[in-house]
Amino acid sequence: MNSPIHMFLLLFSLLFSFGSVMAQTDDADDAFFIKEIYNQALSNGSCYDWLDHLTTNIGGRLSGSNEAALAVDYCASVLEELKLSSVRKQECMVPHWERGKKEVVKIISPANHQMKLRALALGNSVASPENGVTGEVIEVLSLDELEELGRQKIEGKIVFFNRPMDPKQIRTFNAYGGAVDQRVYGPTRAAKFGAAACLVRSLTTRIDSIPHTGVTVYEDDVPKIPALAISTMDAVELSSLIKKGTVKIYLETHCKKFEDALSHNVIGEIKGSTYPDEIILVGGHLDSWDVGGGAHDDGAGCVHAMEVLNILNKLNYKPKRTIRCVLFMNEENGLGGGLEYAKVSNQNNEYHLAAIESDAGGFTPRGFSADGDAKIFTERYKKVTEWLPLLEPYGLSFTKGGSGADISPLKGQMGMLFGFRPDSQRYFDYHHTGIDNIDAVNKRELEMGAASMASLVFLIDKYGL
Amino acid sequence: MNSPIHMFLLLFSLLFSFGSVMAQTDDADDAFFIKEIYNQALSNGSCYDWLDHLTTNIGGRLSGSNEAALAVDYCASVLEELKLSSVRKQECMVPHWERGKKEVVKIISPANHQMKLRALALGNSVASPENGVTGEVIEVLSLDELEELGRQKIEGKIVFFNRPMDPKQIRTFNAYGGAVDQRVYGPTRAAKFGAAACLVRSLTTRIDSIPHTGVTVYEDDVPKIPALAISTMDAVELSSLIKKGTVKIYLETHCKKFEDALSHNVIGEIKGSTYPDEIILVGGHLDSWDVGGGAHDDGAGCVHAMEVLNILNKLNYKPKRTIRCVLFMNEENGLGGGLEYAKVSNQNNEYHLAAIESDAGGFTPRGFSADGDAKIFTERYKKVTEWLPLLEPYGLSFTKGGSGADISPLKGQMGMLFGFRPDSQRYFDYHHTGIDNIDAVNKRELEMGAASMASLVFLIDKYGL
Repeated sequence: MNSPIHMFLLLFSLLFSFGSVMAQTDDADDAFFIKEIYNQALSNGSCYDWLDHLTTNIGGRLSGSNEAALAVDYCASVLEELKLSSVRKQECMVPHWERGKKEVVKIISPANHQMKLRALALGNSVASPENGVTGEVIEVLSLDELEELGRQKIEGKIVFFNRPMDPKQIRTFNAYGGAVDQRVYGPTRAAKFGAAACLVRSLTTRIDSIPHTGVTVYEDDVPKIPALAISTMDAVELSSLIKKGTVKIYLETHCKKFEDALSHNVIGEIKGSTYPDEIILVGGHLDSWDVGGGAHDDGAGCVHAMEVLNILNKLNYKPKRTIRCVLFMNEENGLGGGLEYAKVSNQNNEYHLAAIESDAGGFTPRGFSADGDAKIFTERYKKVTEWLPLLEPYGLSFTKGGSGADISPLKGQMGMLFGFRPDSQRYFDYHHTGIDNIDAVNKRELEMGAASMASLVFLIDKYGL
Repeated sequence: MNSPIHMFLLLFSLLFSFGSVMAQTDDADDAFFIKEIYNQALSNGSCYDWLDHLTTNIGGRLSGSNEAALAVDYCASVLEELKLSSVRKQECMVPHWERGKKEVVKIISPANHQMKLRALALGNSVASPENGVTGEVIEVLSLDELEELGRQKIEGKIVFFNRPMDPKQIRTFNAYGGAVDQRVYGPTRAAKFGAAACLVRSLTTRIDSIPHTGVTVYEDDVPKIPALAISTMDAVELSSLIKKGTVKIYLETHCKKFEDALSHNVIGEIKGSTYPDEIILVGGHLDSWDVGGGAHDDGAGCVHAMEVLNILNKLNYKPKRTIRCVLFMNEENGLGGGLEYAKVSNQNNEYHLAAIESDAGGFTPRGFSADGDAKIFTERYKKVTEWLPLLEPYGLSFTKGGSGADISPLKGQMGMLFGFRPDSQRYFDYHHTGIDNIDAVNKRELEMGAASMASLVFLIDKYGL
């Protein structure tokens, strides 16, 4: 390779194509480093083992629970082992709600269709009166339909919201967005008209026996009524019975809300060498619902974020900017951690050049959604899309759209916000259920998520925004 | 909307941008129809139920087996119900090999490590002698390493091929391609040097207890020795024992090869209205390995192909060209069906304008690989890539590369060959195993595969190639 002809060619390129050679060299270096990131994640990653501990050994981590506290300590200890510049816990106050004894929902009439329905109380739900709630079920498909029926038809009844998620949506999060109002606002709206309790069809496109919980929000000055999700299979069955005549249900919930509790975000960072005040945040949320392991929601996001730092460390990468991993507490029912983090960050005049949240599961990466204040968005979005040739070989693209609940309060700092977007087809098979456990996560898919985030972090760190 | 200004603008476009208006209208129509295809697949599809029957009620469908015959009849009856122009079975001869009684592999020495290994005889493997095979295990990582060792070190031994699939490959099929020579050629090469039997590390990147079978090929005039795959977990364990000293294994296989059997491809088609002699083929292979349900390999491909016809029918689409679904027999261990189909097709002077095979699982679609004779490829590949704006919203792209084993013999007809390419991360978790069953398939991912193929078929039918 050291023949005179090769020397000549080399000289020729140096003389006549300096700019493009430099660009090519940089591109080739970047492509090489991104390949190294994926190699590290796929052949020597730790995130799957961390997730196994978080979901199997610790389990469901609802804010204020003992498990949430264990998760804080576990993740802090993992970050400590990575030998970062610093690791700390940040105090935040969170709600403390407990499901209590297993909820009961059963059809008691018609007599020949008596059966138990597979149900989960919604997060925030109150307990039923001591002798439960018994009432006729009235089915509605939307909040509007509820309004049309009004108090006369609803008072004393058990309202059953049964609008399915639209299976025709390609991105399942859009289908979720089109149905979740029933769960969040349905119970309190029904209570306004005097409903005794509220059932909501589980938010999934599957027809199966798995109930999906999730937060419901009570409005002030409206009576708080028991609110539960039932499995889609049971929703279909219940609806078909209602079409034939009056259906009565007995239900009980044993939930309890306690005083707000002290909890923590977990923060670990590698200090930047050149621009330490420009923070690139990677994060997920530590809390999960209580009924399963919270593997895809959002243990995956936490181990993604930790693995980003681990990968960069293992590759001996010295960032110019500060790379900070933040594991937020209380995304599911309050956003206590996210709001506290942003508040303190603003008080300290911090600047997040970019924040990337993973809260859409540990599936095969498809890219990132990008968001930011209109003043800075267009130019910076153009810049990141120029990196696409480096990211497309890994199936990644950019779309405009919301980032993540925990990082959204940082938008005012005028940095870019990104949401990690993996394939969404299976997410709502597991979301907020008892089956969101480690066996629902494919190791390679999880690892590729971490590598995708690390690659974007690397490019932002190297080139700025 | 009927204001004078709007009329003026309309007139203006008609006068000055006729071509582009037409193109836009066509594009909008095409986008609308493709959306209809996905709507149909995702909200009213049948492929998941068909796959459930094929994999759960019928089960593993190895060529020559009773299950393979049942699968032929079942799929023919499903196609009959679709009211196509014609449905028929095409005779073909296939090998008939049976696994027989469960294989046994156990470590017998060192005495304190006696254990059974989870194993499956490879397809085509002979039975062991009546009293099994006992021998020392010699580990190699490649066919080259085997050659270097030579007869002196191999004679009488049990050769253990233990090169893992490379986890760093992003597309897992590339990792498979880099390791499969051990399974296909390893046993016969070892036999050339007098090996008594051969073990192969299962072809998956996972470390688990699931053995993966698959075909091995014996060369003529070389002794046929028992050949088995062991699980990766056992391969790791065995390798670590070998590093400590001599390891002896006892193994037995009970396989038998019978006379070639009569079997069938299943063919259903919708006759084209304008160019009936231009065939657009969609296909998968009906046979599977015997140990599992053959859900991803390749029940998914069969129901994808059937669903393409079902979707177009349900949307009342009348194709200009002939759309033909072909379910091939015997892809796994002989290609009897694919070769016979091409032979008869050539005899009848048929012309396959395009053939699309789905044989990479029922996962979320990522696009299509495209292949074709060099004389026609460049221009036609350019044409299909012009359709990308219509396909990218569904996550689809084109790559150059091989299509599918069953359709590859059609390349000489100078049409385009496509391989359906879904996400590959999980494929080798299930490939050729006892766990490749319906519960490994996500309904939406499967349905989107059928919709992707139907969309490509629609575009080829409408615009030609």
